[in-house]
Amino acid sequence: MKPSEKKFVQLYTGNGKGKTTAAIGLAVRAAGHGMKTYIGQFMKGQIYGELTALRNHPFITIEQYGDTKCIRKEDVTQKHMDQARQGLFKAQDAMLSGKYDILVLDEINVAVWFGLISVDDVIDFLSKRPDNLEVILTGRNAPAALIAAADLVTEMKEVKHYYTQGILARDGIER
Amino acid sequence: MKPSEKKFVQLYTGNGKGKTTAAIGLAVRAAGHGMKTYIGQFMKGQIYGELTALRNHPFITIEQYGDTKCIRKEDVTQKHMDQARQGLFKAQDAMLSGKYDILVLDEINVAVWFGLISVDDVIDFLSKRPDNLEVILTGRNAPAALIAAADLVTEMKEVKHYYTQGILARDGIER
Repeated sequence: MKPSEKKFVQLYTGNGKGKTTAAIGLAVRAAGHGMKTYIGQFMKGQIYGELTALRNHPFITIEQYGDTKCIRKEDVTQKHMDQARQGLFKAQDAMLSGKYDILVLDEINVAVWFGLISVDDVIDFLSKRPDNLEVILTGRNAPAALIAAADLVTEMKEVKHYYTQGILARDGIER
Repeated sequence: MKPSEKKFVQLYTGNGKGKTTAAIGLAVRAAGHGMKTYIGQFMKGQIYGELTALRNHPFITIEQYGDTKCIRKEDVTQKHMDQARQGLFKAQDAMLSGKYDILVLDEINVAVWFGLISVDDVIDFLSKRPDNLEVILTGRNAPAALIAAADLVTEMKEVKHYYTQGILARDGIER
């Protein structure tokens, strides 16, 4: 990317499919231009396909901050809050390291929605963003303050979903 | 993927960012599970980041069917129609080869919208889909018949875009 090109904060939200995969696809596209991406995944600690596929990728670093078990909002404990907070610190280290062109905070909107971190923590994080770093925030139920803070917002809106046919998450497609 | 798991037709449309990148991210996620993806890109013949990044990927094959120049609807000639039609034939060969778990027809909705191929051609294509193949259709302005034919439809809806700040496509981010 030409150094003169402006960098932005992008946000992918909504109840539809494609938020995390769009961020991963963006990282792959950017790698084709020699750009480096750091992906931090909040609330994820299970084996996702992208984790296996991108391990040892020369241009993409992916780290998980979450538990090995999926949680619901009512299951949140101090442990999950600590994990998310430590994740945000790690992401900040990556952001300020100067090593990356793009930084993805995957599912951070959900981490805020679940109360694992506060929206002010994220706004504070974004205020430290270097001018030459593109930041991508993903996750459903993005808080209004993050939508306001982002330069580009896409809502992935579910129009039709096979969940309604009783199909649950499938390896390689949903995880 | 477990052979018993059902495969579907997914469609990503809408005027927002993230349709093609979601399909690429899905291919990467699937590669992490050892699944193979074929991506055919309609109306694209320029160097996109994903083309460079995924060249020689062990699990992902990407081919472009389009011209080296972007076209507007009013610029369509017989050449573009021939390219799209040949693309659909190539994609059909890939679909019927038994080599792939996932097949992406990138920007096919736009190819139909521009009149390069007919919606009936695509419906006919989908009717030949093997049960063990997931198919992903992308592009804005999806025709109603394709929305009806898909099992999962996500609308990527632009909520806020930096295009309104006068920023055009950037290498590594939009292409």
